[in-house]
Amino acid sequence: MPRRSAAQVEMSRHATLDAAVQVASVVGLDGVTIGSLAEELGMSKSGLVGRFGSKQELQLATLERAANVFREVVYDRAAGAPEGLARLNAICDAWIAYLARPPFPGGCFMTTVSVEFDARDGPIADAVRTFMRRWLRALEHQARLAVDAGELQSDPADVAFTLNALAVGANCDFQLHRDERSLRRARAAMAAVLAAPSAHDRMS
Amino acid sequence: MPRRSAAQVEMSRHATLDAAVQVASVVGLDGVTIGSLAEELGMSKSGLVGRFGSKQELQLATLERAANVFREVVYDRAAGAPEGLARLNAICDAWIAYLARPPFPGGCFMTTVSVEFDARDGPIADAVRTFMRRWLRALEHQARLAVDAGELQSDPADVAFTLNALAVGANCDFQLHRDERSLRRARAAMAAVLAAPSAHDRMS
Repeated sequence: MPRRSAAQVEMSRHATLDAAVQVASVVGLDGVTIGSLAEELGMSKSGLVGRFGSKQELQLATLERAANVFREVVYDRAAGAPEGLARLNAICDAWIAYLARPPFPGGCFMTTVSVEFDARDGPIADAVRTFMRRWLRALEHQARLAVDAGELQSDPADVAFTLNALAVGANCDFQLHRDERSLRRARAAMAAVLAAPSAHDRMS
Repeated sequence: MPRRSAAQVEMSRHATLDAAVQVASVVGLDGVTIGSLAEELGMSKSGLVGRFGSKQELQLATLERAANVFREVVYDRAAGAPEGLARLNAICDAWIAYLARPPFPGGCFMTTVSVEFDARDGPIADAVRTFMRRWLRALEHQARLAVDAGELQSDPADVAFTLNALAVGANCDFQLHRDERSLRRARAAMAAVLAAPSAHDRMS
């Protein structure tokens, strides 16, 4: 076998993880094993072990890949909007678009693995918790900037929690019934959270 | 073996399904198999097959049992409140209490199985969809009564969707981080949905 360049190895690693993310979004991260993925990709198990080490390392790398996709498609896409309220609205737009046409067949990967691992301990559950905390903190940071700018009068952590809960709930509803109204309703509810000082006072 | 009364058989069926619900709330409904449950209960596989027929019938009966528990603990507990806005608020109180101390170790059973089956077809996915539709319709019905009574000015289906999304999102967040603030924030956001004509106008 000819030796491959570092770029080729990296591309192949990405392609493998993309396949793993696709599988995990439907059957859960526990469905991603060296054996199942080797079969899916027509690779040898030993090749995959060489690339990722263990099942757990493969699952952690899969999670990281999905988190990167989420960041690119939701957070980075909104990065052109001014920080604060405009950024939060741009994030919500990108988030709803992500839920409408998720890059993974099973819908929001993070919701799937949250539900899968929330009752467990261990490195994967910890990684899911860390990702979710980071995401909530990013939302809270923008909400705080909006409050500081006088654009919003709610508690920033309440805003972050509520936007995330609406997205998670909308994802579950939309994945189950495939009714676009779920996403329109979620976006309208997000807008209510971000719109009115009076509404926020009631919520905080 | 002495013959058992119909009441004993029914009690034993309930106990078996309660055990199945406990297992499913953590590992998902796919983790409930004749074999795994027989081991959990120290029963013979043939005894379980005799009671439930197939894995699928066992899973459907488990889902039905969990749905009944949810109805008792959330819907029936609020049944003393007058219909309309007061009933919706009583439902939200009971719902948040259910999420805080769920009767199942893995948190809201219906959220877990929704996420597990949302990308699939078949009788179990259909049963999950039917249960969720019924629940949303029950919420929508109370919201419509509240609108008819002039207690609420929002679209009843929007209210039902948003309350459910907040509960699902709060369950995921609370199960992951075990932070009671998740539930307080969700209840406050539910209150905002149910409180103000001005907030609802913005949402619908």
